Amino acid sequence: MTQARRRHDPEVKAFASDNYAGVHPEVLQAVALANGGHQIAYGEDVYTEALQEVFQRHFGPQAQAWPVFNGTGANVVGLRAMTAPWEAVICAESAHVNTDEGGAPEQMAGLKLLTVPTPDGRLTPELIDRQAWGFGDEHRAQPKVVTITESTELGTVYTPEQIAAISAHCRELGLLLHLDGSRLVNAAAALEVPLRALTTDVGVDVLSFGGTKSGLMFGEAIVVLNPSAVRGLVYLRKSSMQLASKMRFVSAQFEALLAGDLWLRNARNANAMAARLAAAVRDIPGVTLTRAVEANAVFAVLPREAADRLRKRFRFYTWNEATGEVRWMTAFDTTEADVDAFAAAVAEELSAS
Amino acid sequence: MTQARRRHDPEVKAFASDNYAGVHPEVLQAVALANGGHQIAYGEDVYTEALQEVFQRHFGPQAQAWPVFNGTGANVVGLRAMTAPWEAVICAESAHVNTDEGGAPEQMAGLKLLTVPTPDGRLTPELIDRQAWGFGDEHRAQPKVVTITESTELGTVYTPEQIAAISAHCRELGLLLHLDGSRLVNAAAALEVPLRALTTDVGVDVLSFGGTKSGLMFGEAIVVLNPSAVRGLVYLRKSSMQLASKMRFVSAQFEALLAGDLWLRNARNANAMAARLAAAVRDIPGVTLTRAVEANAVFAVLPREAADRLRKRFRFYTWNEATGEVRWMTAFDTTEADVDAFAAAVAEELSAS
Amino acid sequence: MTQARRRHDPEVKAFASDNYAGVHPEVLQAVALANGGHQIAYGEDVYTEALQEVFQRHFGPQAQAWPVFNGTGANVVGLRAMTAPWEAVICAESAHVNTDEGGAPEQMAGLKLLTVPTPDGRLTPELIDRQAWGFGDEHRAQPKVVTITESTELGTVYTPEQIAAISAHCRELGLLLHLDGSRLVNAAAALEVPLRALTTDVGVDVLSFGGTKSGLMFGEAIVVLNPSAVRGLVYLRKSSMQLASKMRFVSAQFEALLAGDLWLRNARNANAMAARLAAAVRDIPGVTLTRAVEANAVFAVLPREAADRLRKRFRFYTWNEATGEVRWMTAFDTTEADVDAFAAAVAEELSAS
Amino acid sequence: MTQARRRHDPEVKAFASDNYAGVHPEVLQAVALANGGHQIAYGEDVYTEALQEVFQRHFGPQAQAWPVFNGTGANVVGLRAMTAPWEAVICAESAHVNTDEGGAPEQMAGLKLLTVPTPDGRLTPELIDRQAWGFGDEHRAQPKVVTITESTELGTVYTPEQIAAISAHCRELGLLLHLDGSRLVNAAAALEVPLRALTTDVGVDVLSFGGTKSGLMFGEAIVVLNPSAVRGLVYLRKSSMQLASKMRFVSAQFEALLAGDLWLRNARNANAMAARLAAAVRDIPGVTLTRAVEANAVFAVLPREAADRLRKRFRFYTWNEATGEVRWMTAFDTTEADVDAFAAAVAEELSAS
Repeated sequence: MTQARRRHDPEVKAFASDNYAGVHPEVLQAVALANGGHQIAYGEDVYTEALQEVFQRHFGPQAQAWPVFNGTGANVVGLRAMTAPWEAVICAESAHVNTDEGGAPEQMAGLKLLTVPTPDGRLTPELIDRQAWGFGDEHRAQPKVVTITESTELGTVYTPEQIAAISAHCRELGLLLHLDGSRLVNAAAALEVPLRALTTDVGVDVLSFGGTKSGLMFGEAIVVLNPSAVRGLVYLRKSSMQLASKMRFVSAQFEALLAGDLWLRNARNANAMAARLAAAVRDIPGVTLTRAVEANAVFAVLPREAADRLRKRFRFYTWNEATGEVRWMTAFDTTEADVDAFAAAVAEELSAS
Repeated sequence: MTQARRRHDPEVKAFASDNYAGVHPEVLQAVALANGGHQIAYGEDVYTEALQEVFQRHFGPQAQAWPVFNGTGANVVGLRAMTAPWEAVICAESAHVNTDEGGAPEQMAGLKLLTVPTPDGRLTPELIDRQAWGFGDEHRAQPKVVTITESTELGTVYTPEQIAAISAHCRELGLLLHLDGSRLVNAAAALEVPLRALTTDVGVDVLSFGGTKSGLMFGEAIVVLNPSAVRGLVYLRKSSMQLASKMRFVSAQFEALLAGDLWLRNARNANAMAARLAAAVRDIPGVTLTRAVEANAVFAVLPREAADRLRKRFRFYTWNEATGEVRWMTAFDTTEADVDAFAAAVAEELSAS
Repeated sequence: MTQARRRHDPEVKAFASDNYAGVHPEVLQAVALANGGHQIAYGEDVYTEALQEVFQRHFGPQAQAWPVFNGTGANVVGLRAMTAPWEAVICAESAHVNTDEGGAPEQMAGLKLLTVPTPDGRLTPELIDRQAWGFGDEHRAQPKVVTITESTELGTVYTPEQIAAISAHCRELGLLLHLDGSRLVNAAAALEVPLRALTTDVGVDVLSFGGTKSGLMFGEAIVVLNPSAVRGLVYLRKSSMQLASKMRFVSAQFEALLAGDLWLRNARNANAMAARLAAAVRDIPGVTLTRAVEANAVFAVLPREAADRLRKRFRFYTWNEATGEVRWMTAFDTTEADVDAFAAAVAEELSAS
Repeated sequence: MTQARRRHDPEVKAFASDNYAGVHPEVLQAVALANGGHQIAYGEDVYTEALQEVFQRHFGPQAQAWPVFNGTGANVVGLRAMTAPWEAVICAESAHVNTDEGGAPEQMAGLKLLTVPTPDGRLTPELIDRQAWGFGDEHRAQPKVVTITESTELGTVYTPEQIAAISAHCRELGLLLHLDGSRLVNAAAALEVPLRALTTDVGVDVLSFGGTKSGLMFGEAIVVLNPSAVRGLVYLRKSSMQLASKMRFVSAQFEALLAGDLWLRNARNANAMAARLAAAVRDIPGVTLTRAVEANAVFAVLPREAADRLRKRFRFYTWNEATGEVRWMTAFDTTEADVDAFAAAVAEELSAS
């Protein structure tokens, strides 16, 4: 007899991270349909085969999708396939790959990250130039890849033109362009453009496509847009511990997300809820929004005591301990009622200050 | 509207690998129950918290369970947490960690594997001694861990006494004992002993506990039985790309497997089906069983042409290209009818030779 | 019959690097005396044994000296022995370990460097705090070591008080302090303090002691001042390819440098020549000295065409391509005549502008 | 005043290792001639430039010589330049790279070594086939290089024909051939063939050329015979901590060794002394020579007590603790008197048994 049980209250939401959300029902249904019987392990199943066509509809006929377990894996394996051991990666100082992956790029791939401070999480050709030098000098790890995040860790969004300018600059310098797209769907939804407008069409070579934050249980995909930009991906995915044996269950989830418009519905909702939240709190005395709200994150400064009281009611993270800046994130399952309740709590705690 | 669809025939089974099977319905039900609402990401959820108690019921009050994505991850992260960068791991030449992980231990953890040929996949104190030397000599990677697989890659099973003898030998030499238990449940079921009889009670320090092969969608657990045997596991799991953001869905699956007797039912079925298969084919002229059938694998030699014809009807792997030895594996979902159909096919193809 | 021949003009000097200089005659004599007969390889020779006492006279009775081949090796092996694989190193952005070792710390040791911009190459407790955070958070590589360079890559010198303040701050934070002392002798000579005043007496845990730049043919030493700060150094030196088989010839060189006052004579000369050069060019119109001249480096800005003409007469490096800043270094063998000839050339080329 | 002093008796020789010997006087003279004045650091000096031609005279016009510090460095950097991170190296179980480099290939380069037991230290095409399989299978580290040692760790010598057969087999399989030539000169002298007969002419792609064991103070060279077999060597040498700043002193030593016949004189002497020793002890009752004496090593079994007494008079190593087999090595500076004294001691200690 089954021992499965529900241990949590499914009505409770937080504003901490889109990783706190669960699985979209359509995704879970796809998993159930993919179940039963035997399928070849390690990616030779029919779901993974079918997934290629799904990704190609979004990213063009040359696209190759390599499902992996998580975002760290997608970024590290993708970057590793784009670099030789003596090559380095240019990124924003605030890039997730630099700040939040526990040193995985350095430890697991020996990758030196050449970081650049940015005002808003976005690189530009000029900022890239601060690290794109020393080619041919053996005393310097050789710059080879620029990686950008779309939407950025600071809730901002690159336009297609901005990415195209970076990509053109990379081509001139002999660099490759990688895009960490754990929230690419949010950027595309915000800009009302197809996914390829931010990737294939503007010269991105390799992409980490986020699934987990968009309503999957687990799963990201390395999407190779320029096959000549990578080497040995099939081997590196395995030796980097990112090859799922029962891969059909990753691929089926991605198909549910991408074959129709679920990705867009989910992203639009998250973005709309962030906009709603920003509008609701913007004029509360004591709250200062600190970043443009372009996707599904709201950054704010408020008095620390108010933040601490608020945190007892809704979980969220302090972004910068020094300044007290906080981050409020919305997800595919955040509702208007959730936002309104949270905004009301913000107002209450600030009036109590 | 959902795009999810079934793309495969759930009636078709193979004898290739327990990784070809899907998800046990009770496990899927647990996933559904864990869904909805928000839970803290990266392992601070209530399901992962509750999982500790479940593992402790099996492995004793000191056990700590660290869910990861897959078996390669469990082995590499566990071994890395047991070793300093200059230390090495003794294993059977046939160990999965040596033969089937794409060089992950060397590439990702810098681990030298000191291998020993074995007659049947099992190490002994005497075999360990062939590599357990050179302590203090900087010219030799320092032996620090012995890793054994239970049940072994050759379908054999260590008895508790055999593991205890190895563990005592390790203690004498100052070595730690790791157990790759991707099929530990099959060994316990075969020997009719609790899981701790093969681990905690006989001196295993750290264990990779397999979930995927036992009916999970994905997920393994590093189970630390001797907390002093590991360092930095919390950091290494993250930087080794094995930290699931929505970890509740790994933990809920494990709870479904281990809180009741699902693990035992699944393992018993797989073992019984392997025994049934062995019995059914043992006397077919042209078939020679090459290994003791102690868990859920049957190894055999049969004429290559017969094997090739058979493979067109049921998928399975050649184990040894040189000798033509094949491996037939059963899974939690293999039925008597599946076995009987396969055995009949074996008989047919051999009579056609 | 010997084929040895001189292929270069030993009268020609440059102002490019103290690595351009050769071997001090007293060092070469020591090598010759250490030659002949057999000595145990890999560091068990009598010269390496005797060297311990030499280093202990300078650094205190707890000091342990581990000869290695070069500075990259000393830094990487030393830092690796101070860190676990999940730990990180805080350094100035301008640190040699960050800018000039071809990514060796990341590639060979998996070390993440947490860099901080500095005005003059020197860290301070406040600057360290910009990276010393996130302890216990698995998403951040764990800060464990601060490394400083004495004298710095920018020709400046930390006073004993400044190092003591950093060291006290490290202790409070649970961090270790490493000192890259490839030019420690120049700092000690400049400050007129013994070597231990900048290391042992102010809380440095581990030191890279430079030999090559001070007149050795090759050889640096990892000097452990706090034995509890390192693990596995004997193994890491070997596996990091830094264990010399005929180590007597490294150790004998170090003895020649350190048993008497050769280190001080050499350092004083290099420093005095830098001061002489600075004084000679400071008032030449068109030349602007850009950094304090505290050891054996002079940094300046001058018109690019003048610099290019000058470079045809004396080799030196551009430090910053963007600003045109150049670096002029003096060495143990730079003479007053060398400096005067160079200063005259500077004046000539600038008057020709 | 100089502090240099002689601390050892230059008359004492051992039979432990050719690494116990010092520096040949002609080599030391070359060092002295290369001294004085300034030379560009890191390999752009005139000695390193001239060295290319010296190596090309021996190995052909396509040869490129990359001086490094030591044999571990030459092997690891060379192999790393021949492999991508997911590729593996086939070697004899007794290969130095497997047994005596402290796990450097695995730790520093992530290289999996696929080892094969051999009867006498020599691989053959058939033995290589035991590991040369699994091409294209991501679950197996991909075999890419075969490395052989000439002369072998067991004192045996590959003939040109044997190497040619291995090389042809490698070509068929798409593998590259690496030769660890730390004692290549001894093999060439023994076979009375030029160096290229064992390398360039029989299809070796990359070579570690030993200098230290042949009379240098320090220094080995990676010699690339097939430029298409390597990638990024210039960067890997630096980041692997094997780039000497004052490289002129490595190159000048190699020139002294190779421009004339010093290499041959030294190797012939070492070989002749091993042959003399073998002849002298072969018939001593209680001594059994265990390997063919083809270069400069003699392997023997003798009673343990006799070996222990003998070891108090002349240092040497036990090769195999289990069997008591010992290794006696001769060097470039071993004299007939040394051998005769040692052989007399053997006889004495055995007659005392």
